[in-house]
Amino acid sequence: MSDRVVRVEDTIEKLLAEKKYPVLKEVLRTMNGADVAAVFNELDPVVLPLLFRVLPKDTAADCFVEMEPEAQEKLIKGLSDTELREIVNDLFVDDAADIVEEMPATVVKRILAQADPQMRKEINEVLKYPENSAGSIMTTEFVALKPEMTIRDALNVIRKTGVDKETIYTCYVTEKGVLIGFVSVKDLILAPSDDIQIRTLMTENVISVGVKEDQEQVAEMFKKYNFLAMPVVDSENRMVGIITVDDVMDVMEDETTEDMQIMAGMMPSDKVYLRSKPVELFKSRIPWLLILMISSTFTSLIIDKFEAALAAQVVLTAFIPMLMGTGGNSGSQSSVTVIRAISLGEVEWGDLPAIIWKEGRTAFLCGLALAGACFIKLMLLDGLLLGNDGVNAKVALVVSLAMLFTVILAKSIGCILPMVAKKLNFDPAVMASPFITTIVDALSLLVYFGIASAILF
Amino acid sequence: MSDRVVRVEDTIEKLLAEKKYPVLKEVLRTMNGADVAAVFNELDPVVLPLLFRVLPKDTAADCFVEMEPEAQEKLIKGLSDTELREIVNDLFVDDAADIVEEMPATVVKRILAQADPQMRKEINEVLKYPENSAGSIMTTEFVALKPEMTIRDALNVIRKTGVDKETIYTCYVTEKGVLIGFVSVKDLILAPSDDIQIRTLMTENVISVGVKEDQEQVAEMFKKYNFLAMPVVDSENRMVGIITVDDVMDVMEDETTEDMQIMAGMMPSDKVYLRSKPVELFKSRIPWLLILMISSTFTSLIIDKFEAALAAQVVLTAFIPMLMGTGGNSGSQSSVTVIRAISLGEVEWGDLPAIIWKEGRTAFLCGLALAGACFIKLMLLDGLLLGNDGVNAKVALVVSLAMLFTVILAKSIGCILPMVAKKLNFDPAVMASPFITTIVDALSLLVYFGIASAILF
Repeated sequence: MSDRVVRVEDTIEKLLAEKKYPVLKEVLRTMNGADVAAVFNELDPVVLPLLFRVLPKDTAADCFVEMEPEAQEKLIKGLSDTELREIVNDLFVDDAADIVEEMPATVVKRILAQADPQMRKEINEVLKYPENSAGSIMTTEFVALKPEMTIRDALNVIRKTGVDKETIYTCYVTEKGVLIGFVSVKDLILAPSDDIQIRTLMTENVISVGVKEDQEQVAEMFKKYNFLAMPVVDSENRMVGIITVDDVMDVMEDETTEDMQIMAGMMPSDKVYLRSKPVELFKSRIPWLLILMISSTFTSLIIDKFEAALAAQVVLTAFIPMLMGTGGNSGSQSSVTVIRAISLGEVEWGDLPAIIWKEGRTAFLCGLALAGACFIKLMLLDGLLLGNDGVNAKVALVVSLAMLFTVILAKSIGCILPMVAKKLNFDPAVMASPFITTIVDALSLLVYFGIASAILF
Repeated sequence: MSDRVVRVEDTIEKLLAEKKYPVLKEVLRTMNGADVAAVFNELDPVVLPLLFRVLPKDTAADCFVEMEPEAQEKLIKGLSDTELREIVNDLFVDDAADIVEEMPATVVKRILAQADPQMRKEINEVLKYPENSAGSIMTTEFVALKPEMTIRDALNVIRKTGVDKETIYTCYVTEKGVLIGFVSVKDLILAPSDDIQIRTLMTENVISVGVKEDQEQVAEMFKKYNFLAMPVVDSENRMVGIITVDDVMDVMEDETTEDMQIMAGMMPSDKVYLRSKPVELFKSRIPWLLILMISSTFTSLIIDKFEAALAAQVVLTAFIPMLMGTGGNSGSQSSVTVIRAISLGEVEWGDLPAIIWKEGRTAFLCGLALAGACFIKLMLLDGLLLGNDGVNAKVALVVSLAMLFTVILAKSIGCILPMVAKKLNFDPAVMASPFITTIVDALSLLVYFGIASAILF
């Protein structure tokens, strides 16, 4: 048994080398645009224009949008102006704007030169909104209906203009540009008669987002309301575009990546990992590493202050990493739990007492279990089995008690800090592991030496 | 200026107390089902049946699905059998199955008793698939067309059955139950004539998922192909249901939560945070805390072994937390980056050399910057400013060198372990901060004491 998989790339490359274009055409015809794009990203860019020309028209458009910027750029360079014009004017406005944002200036110039005047205007419209705003992810193509139309009129409008619109399934009813309602195609099809007026059929209670709204907020609304598309309006409630659910899934993915990066003490970056240069990774990682390293001066100071005690009972040093580690892990658990609950909208500032009460009891349970396990581990594993003669019941008691209080402290801080950050309009994700760990490190030492002083000296 | 916001809950409660039902009805009529659900979750459950009865029918169904299980349960208990029957048979099958899974046995019995025989059969169908499988999130309601139908026939089928189907926008073409193609409603509406046969209009190249496929995989496919719905087939390619994009967004959210929980060293739980009991939180958190605490025995052993050296140069102890902390943070950055790249499908096993080369260079840059900063910090801040007289150029050199090597080690381990975990079919997310930190703690001590022995003694 071999687990070798024949990849379609290999087949395509061979067919290409043998110039079997009719076969190639048939092979590509069976594939979805996104799959073809994945193959194109892997191939030598030189062959892309040739392959692109044998793609069915629909697949070609889907494929182009899904390709990576590097491959897109090389493909564009290999296409004639006429071919480029056809592709560009076939794109949805939001996709075209995304591509323009990724390309170098010379390519952007060529793309905009080939775009129809209307297309060029709409691309520029979308490009003017700040990154991460609703405006920047919307498309300006949507089906607009008038309230006085009948269902028959509406279906004709859809038929006439629908091929160019990113989604036709929700149509928006406007009066002098102002959004006053919506009808779904389902409503149109299921209606008992074609003569009914849109005004009577439409839902007036329409939920929209402002063009400057944060995209994360937009994603929340899609999740809450289960929409396929959502209208975007300006400050006068005039409709300027729609956001579709496929773009929202990309936003959700980007926001998750960003959260995870921040939670691991990095500056967020939306670049694909394998395309990020070491120097870019360095820049996104070094700030927090430096800040956290310098703040560990506190822990050094504390150890320095208790130098004499440590010299007298060197065995105490051996358990510093265990205490700090367990404290850090306990605190991270609480902070990550609360950070996630905040970003899911499950908790708000008023829930703080409930959170502290819940985490406090959890911390007490965890602390008791860990302190008990710690006492047994020190006496049996470190003392008896590994023969560390510094360990006796008194030392084990000090470490275990320190463990109990460290865990309780760590979990309390872990749940409070993200809530405070949110209240102060900081990103709660900053309060994840690295930050909590640094604070807990210092506190756990204070607790440890405090208890040691009381019991041992 | 006051930032007090009048919440609609308060308004509704007041209107309710004053028994102003007609006004209440008007207020609720302006609201979306999901918004009403959010209000219902906050209100005293006693008033829910009363409020529910004044809701418009459509809003009532949407609202019921979006309510939290606790509120749903209490509402159901307050409804008559007739009212319950109406709601249950109005639900989509996948939503009904979700609700049944959350309810206690007595409530389930009542729900199933009120369901139509067909509904009951379909709920049971969905319930029999394992959790997290495509089958468990699908709905069995979809529009099935025959290839020999004309567009006119197809639209009639949609009109006749469409009101009950979760999405009508993609219709699936089956022959003896086997999926052979699909048509979108867009295709139907935009077609030049109503007499065209579905067979000629349909796309044959249809992408489907197996009923046992993992839901995470399904979400990946939605993101890749930008679908609104996806057909689910059995092993003989017979169509059994569809998955819609709104359910996929919930899956994405759940999977992100699960990843974050695992990355913070917790057992995943899909329970809402504020509804989790401390004992449940304890159970999900204690296993990793215990495992990681006990594995810190290695660090204790290492410190124990170098006890004599530490007693001679107590100043070295003061910088153990800084080294470990920075090492842990550096390692987490790499591991979280790689874990995320794995889950986005950006890297696979064959990329390991490229990843190590990228992380190696990044680590070298970070290590150099941190070592330099560390040397300056020790000499100026700890030595001169804070007057720690144990710190001299030799000690600062030892700590800085240890810093350089620790960072390089930490980042290498941080990027390799998630890849190895993935290769061995473990969840890479396990290899995040807590796990990496524990390994890096031990290694950084070995490096530290090794360098100290070479330079100081």
